[in-house]
This record gives sequence, structure tokens and C-alpha cells, in this order.
Amino acid sequence: MEKDSQLSVMGGGLVGCLLSLYLARQGYSVDVYERRPDLRRAELAGGRSINLALSDRGWRALQNIGIAQDIKKVAIPMYRRVMHDLQGHLSYQPYGQEGQAIYSVSRNGLNQALLDLAEAQPNISLHFQQQVLDVEVATNKITLADVASGEQHQITPDVIFAADGAYSMVRLSLMKTDRFNYEQSYLNYGYKELTIPPGAEGAWQLEKNALHIWPRGQYMMIALPNLDGTFTCTLFFPFEGEPSFEALQTPGQVQAFFEKTFPDAAALMPDLTQEYFENPTGSLVTVKCFPWSHEGKILLVGDAAHAIVPFYGQGMNAGFEDCSVLSSLLEQHPGDWESIFKTFQEARKPNTDAIADLAVYNFIEMRDKVADPRFLLQKKIEAKITAQYPDSWLPLYSMVTFSPDLPYAEALANGRRQDEIMRHLMDHIQTEEDYSKPAVQAYLQNHLGK
Amino acid sequence: MEKDSQLSVMGGGLVGCLLSLYLARQGYSVDVYERRPDLRRAELAGGRSINLALSDRGWRALQNIGIAQDIKKVAIPMYRRVMHDLQGHLSYQPYGQEGQAIYSVSRNGLNQALLDLAEAQPNISLHFQQQVLDVEVATNKITLADVASGEQHQITPDVIFAADGAYSMVRLSLMKTDRFNYEQSYLNYGYKELTIPPGAEGAWQLEKNALHIWPRGQYMMIALPNLDGTFTCTLFFPFEGEPSFEALQTPGQVQAFFEKTFPDAAALMPDLTQEYFENPTGSLVTVKCFPWSHEGKILLVGDAAHAIVPFYGQGMNAGFEDCSVLSSLLEQHPGDWESIFKTFQEARKPNTDAIADLAVYNFIEMRDKVADPRFLLQKKIEAKITAQYPDSWLPLYSMVTFSPDLPYAEALANGRRQDEIMRHLMDHIQTEEDYSKPAVQAYLQNHLGK
Repeated sequence: MEKDSQLSVMGGGLVGCLLSLYLARQGYSVDVYERRPDLRRAELAGGRSINLALSDRGWRALQNIGIAQDIKKVAIPMYRRVMHDLQGHLSYQPYGQEGQAIYSVSRNGLNQALLDLAEAQPNISLHFQQQVLDVEVATNKITLADVASGEQHQITPDVIFAADGAYSMVRLSLMKTDRFNYEQSYLNYGYKELTIPPGAEGAWQLEKNALHIWPRGQYMMIALPNLDGTFTCTLFFPFEGEPSFEALQTPGQVQAFFEKTFPDAAALMPDLTQEYFENPTGSLVTVKCFPWSHEGKILLVGDAAHAIVPFYGQGMNAGFEDCSVLSSLLEQHPGDWESIFKTFQEARKPNTDAIADLAVYNFIEMRDKVADPRFLLQKKIEAKITAQYPDSWLPLYSMVTFSPDLPYAEALANGRRQDEIMRHLMDHIQTEEDYSKPAVQAYLQNHLGK
Repeated sequence: MEKDSQLSVMGGGLVGCLLSLYLARQGYSVDVYERRPDLRRAELAGGRSINLALSDRGWRALQNIGIAQDIKKVAIPMYRRVMHDLQGHLSYQPYGQEGQAIYSVSRNGLNQALLDLAEAQPNISLHFQQQVLDVEVATNKITLADVASGEQHQITPDVIFAADGAYSMVRLSLMKTDRFNYEQSYLNYGYKELTIPPGAEGAWQLEKNALHIWPRGQYMMIALPNLDGTFTCTLFFPFEGEPSFEALQTPGQVQAFFEKTFPDAAALMPDLTQEYFENPTGSLVTVKCFPWSHEGKILLVGDAAHAIVPFYGQGMNAGFEDCSVLSSLLEQHPGDWESIFKTFQEARKPNTDAIADLAVYNFIEMRDKVADPRFLLQKKIEAKITAQYPDSWLPLYSMVTFSPDLPYAEALANGRRQDEIMRHLMDHIQTEEDYSKPAVQAYLQNHLGK
């Protein structure tokens, strides 16, 4: 069953590949255009977004097309946050209930697996090193340049799916149409990727099944495990001020700063200063826009529609969720692209706005609050409430990460209600044992009991 | 005294012309590039932004270069708002104190006068029909196309001043640089310009020295006087819904709607339906961005840096104020563009953000609140407070409109404080006479007395 419409997906990254698989499965013939070379064959530049955290929304989207099990084999479950203080002392915070985890996966490994799957589909054609130069919104005519030869050619697909990322060229063309709302906002923080190599016999040098955080108030470093025994560390750090990327100018300054600020990590980073000066400093942008579609002929998806900062680990998951939501709308209104796109953007926009705001907020939680004993006590109390009132209480992190049926916007709204309750409750609580105090129990019964 | 730097001003509109005059006065040689033909010689397309309201910030900027008196001759003072209800009954609200007015001026007339002044300067060169195709931020190389011949050529000015409006091409290039924060947001309202022609012997058919408003809750029409006896009416109206531009499809529907909704105006508009369908429907955008400058080589000014909706009548005034602020910084740091631009953007940004938000808010006031007797009573009470406590109270509108020494952001902050006081005060006030009640006087003495 091959359908008539000629569909083009711009961007062969994670979302572009997954979307093309969803479209192909519904019988459409799909061309995928990607600016970069085929990363299964190309030399990789390091230092940017080497690994990602897959959680339940992402898994569901992979399950729908039957590839979750394969990916899980190369993913490392992380069951908890491990916080490292200035003396290298550790504290812990589980992500969810027993057995619940987020999964560290390699961006490139996942992208390669999705490219393999796409290539194996007879109705998907992959085109690499194709750079979008121009998109004529009125006619859907796209001018592409072959990066290798410089030759230009044009395509005019019936429908364009723009999965071309946070700096989408397709979106740039939509921006010039009337009444296109758009916002790009940067944090005053950049990021730098660094490595903790494996120890003796390839062993992980920190607890493997955890996400590590060095919270330092105004900034932080994190580390995620890789299959090869390394950890990818990411320093989130102010661009300017004291301390900042601008302020650390020499290898000596960097080494001294790390030894003082992240002593246990610095001891495990033999190539620290070389990596610090070789790897690029990334910036952190949130992109919001609306509408995401143009007349049933163009649709923005993933980061092109809603790029977010990485602090909730939801960027890829939200993009993958776009694919499953879109796919079920396509089953309901086959071929009626205008209805599909309108329904899609109306349904998705409040949710991606919510996760964008949550992601910015979570930076504060990770860099600052997780170092606060009161905050960790509150998390423990929340876990107790969840155990006692499982039908009416779930921590916000769990709603976002482990409840793929719950839209992000509802998770955020529930989280705000729960925050109010916690604010009152924590006035009565100094220790974990205070949870059993009659005043605490009465308050909870009053607000959460049936 | 001709200075070395080669300056280019992109855009020969109101702000571009005024800025070039300021720069030329300081001894710089300036090229002005404008996409449109010379509007002193061209046939004008009607239906968009025919007149504007000049107020004290704008006048000050014109005074500085000695042209305020000439412009005042072709400006019509408007001393008050005149509200028209559904029966054509009128009510009134003065803009300020006795003698204070905002001035209706013709956009084209003002632009022509500024072009004449610029052309008379030996160190200003005007270049019309020059369309910016590309700006290379790293090198300041601009590719221009001659609109008439299609020929392309390039310029590389030392400093680029982008006065190319809300849809600035220069800004589009800055947008692709790292960490450029940008937002364009549209109201769900459009606007349509219509005309009330002169009556017998060229007389104005409504009170001449006033801004007329037909407030209708969710939408409104306004009218400003022109020198030729006409009024330019602008309907601000939802794009979709009931009623809306989308809903009014036929001349009959438009005529019936106007006769029911704006009966006294409709009776004065013989060409209503023709104009309604011939004139374009404009959209209403707010643009915020930051930074406005790039390395002392590019600066955004006016709408290119901060486009706002028209409801406070401050868009042009804010752009003109940019010119006077910039000029005094240039006197302090001659030739040190990087310092000038950094200081300029840091100083101006909070103020243009404030006026952007005030402009959106004022739409609600104009379309809805001015029809509310309680609101008009509050304005009268505020006038009494100003009279009694002239050193500590000035209505927000006056601070924005008639106090050019007060930055917009401070006006907004003062306005919010005063709002708090008015909220308390109005609980005790049912009539103008209640102003003398002891409770009211005590409250004021307590908050405003020295």
C-alpha cells in the first residue's frame, strides 16, 4: 500500500529518522534530507551532546515501531542521582520507585540504529549532505545544495516535515510569514563536555547506574555513564562573571579550579585541560513558536518546533512523543494533513511550553537545591506521600519522566498544586519521622483523602 | 570637521532619517539606504499607518536638531479622548493638564520633511530602492540589490545602523549569531484603515482637536484628524471569531455591522465598504531582542530593535528617543562605538521593554475600560490627586507621554505603585465629591504627604 503524497522529512537526526519510520509504516513514501554526511560512515567530531537520557515517553515511541528492545540493549539504566559535595562526599536521590530509571544512551549510537532501520524500509530514501538553502513557503519549493559538489537542485514535496533542529531553516522561512509567533531565548550559561576515562580493566570509576551531579549553587557539573566504561561529564557554567568560561583562561587556572571545586572528579580526569580547551563551548537555547504548520503542507516537529534546555532530560523524549502523537492523528484522519497538523499543534503546544519551562526550572534544582538537606528531606517526604496516597500523589519528576499517558502541561499543573501543599507541610517537618505527626497526617488526609 | 568612520544607516524611514541628521551634525559622513522609492516623488499606497501621534519624547528629539517648530506647523494637537458610545453619545477624558496635547501628524509628511533636511546636508547621501539581500555579520559586508535594475552591489561600512523597521533584514542576520535573544509576538487582532471625509467647505466632521474612540469591549475603532479635514479611522478587530475580519465577508455585512456598532461614524463614511475591501488588513507585532549591537560595528535602532503595538502612541516617539539618547552618548565617547552601543543597549532595553508591555496593556484600556464610568471616575480622582500632590503623583499616561525626562521603565514602576494606591482608594469613592471624605484624604496624606 503506497500512498500518493510525496513526503519529505528535512533532517535525518533522531526525530527525523523516527518520524520517517512512522510515516513509512503508514504506507507513505518518504525522502529524508540531511545536511551532514551519513554518520555511520563519517568521522565524528566530539564535544557535543554525546549522550542523552531516554525516559518513558521516548521508550513508548520506540516501542510503537518495535525497536525499543534493541535500543535497550545499548542503554544504561540510571536509578538515582548521586550528588558529590566539595569534599567528595556523596548523597543520593532515587529518580522514582524501585526499578524505575532513566537510560543513558549514545546520541550517535541511537541515530545510527534509526538510520539503519530507515534504510531498510523500501519506501524511505535517505539523502545525505543536502543543505537547505531556501524554502518557498507559498509553493513548498525547497532549494538544496549538495555539500560535496556544491551543485544546487530543487524539490517540491507535497508535504514537508521539518525535523531540522533548533536552528531550523524551514522555520526561518515560516518566520517571514504573517502572524508567526517566535521566541528564541538563551541562558547566560554555556556547556562544555569532558571525559572521565575507564579505570583498570575498563571499569566505571563512579557508580555506573546513576546520574552524577556536582551541584555548586550557580553552576554544576554532571556525568552520565557510557557503555565503554567512560563517563561523559558536562560542565554548565556562566559565560561571564566570576567564575565563568571567560574567567578561566589558562590550563593552570582550569586545573586549579577543578581541583578545588570538583576534587573527586578532577582526580579522575587526566585529559581535563586538553579537553577543556579543545572542546567547543555550547550555548543553551529555548525556542518557542506558533503555529507549527502552514496549510497542511509544512509541519515543524521536534526541536524545530520546541527546542528546550537539557535539564529535564526531555528534549529527545518530547520530540519522539511528537512522532507517536502525530502517528495516531494520522490514523484518525488519513491524508487530511491540514486537520492533522491543526489538531497536532493545538494539542502539543501547551505541553511543549510546559516542558520548556520545567527544563529551565530544573537547572536551578540540579545546580542548587539538590545540595540542600531540606530539599532532599522534602523529596523523601514526597516519596512517603506517594506510598500512602498512590492515587492522588506522584512527584512532579515522576509525572514528567515515568507517566507517558500524562501530558506535560497536566504534570506541570499537578506539580504546582502539590508544591502548594508541600509548602504548608514542610513548616511542620524537621525530620523524616515528623511525617507521622498528627498535624501532618491530618493535613494530608484533608487534602488528599477521598 | 568630517570624521573618518564610514557610517551607513539602513532604512530611510522616520528613525533612519532622524538618526542620519544626528550623526551628520556630529561630523560623520552618512549613507542612507532605503528599499522603497523616494516617497517625495512616488505614488503612495494608502491604507497603512497614515498618521501618528507625536508626544514629548518625539518633540524633544526634533527640537535637538532644530526642526520641531517646522513640524509643529503641520501637526494637529489632540487635547483629549472623545469616546463614542453605541448611541453616538460622547464622553471625554483629557490627556493631561490644561494645554497638554499629543499631536496628530502625517507619517508621510513627516518622513518627507526629514528627507528634505537630510538631503540638504552635504555629508548625508540618500540611496533609494536599495534592497538589503544579505548582511555578513563577521565582515559588515552588505549585499544590496537595486530594485529598479536588479543589479547587485556590495558595501562594507565601518558601522551599520539598522533602522530598517519591525521586519529588519539586518536583525535577521544577527539572529543567526550565537546567543541572540529574540521574540516576535502577534496580537490576535488586525487593523484596517478607513476614512471620514471632510464635510461642507472642508470642515472636520468630528471634534478636530481630539482622538476619537469607539470602545466596544473586545475591539474598537479610533479616529485621528488630518490637516485636509479628513479623519483617519482605524478599526482594531479580531482576525477570527465573532465578530471578526474573517466573519465579515460581504459589503452588506460590513455596512450592517458598522451601522449597528459605530452608527455615528458609519453615517460619515460614504466609501466604507469600498475602503474596507480595498485596504489591507494589517497585523500587530511586538518585537523584543537583545543584544542590539554587534562588536561596535552594528546597532539596531527604532522598530528594528523594539517594535511595539500602536496603542500607547509611542512607537515613533521611542525610536526618536533612541536618536537623542544615542547622540548624547556619542558626545561623551566620540568614536568609541563599542562603548556607546553597549551603554546604549543596557540603558534603553528596560525602557523599551516597559513601553512594549504598556502598549499591549493600553489596548485593553482603550477598547474596554474607557467605556466604564468607574474608570473615568478614577481618572478624574487621579487628576485631583495630581493637583493636590503635584510632586508625588502624576498619572501613568502623563509620565509616559508628557515627561520626557522620565525613563519608560520608571514610569511603569511608578504607575504600578500608584495603581496599588488607587485600588485601595476607589473602595471609598462613589462620586467625585467623595474625594474630600476624611478617610480618603487621610489615606492620601499618609501615602503621599511629606
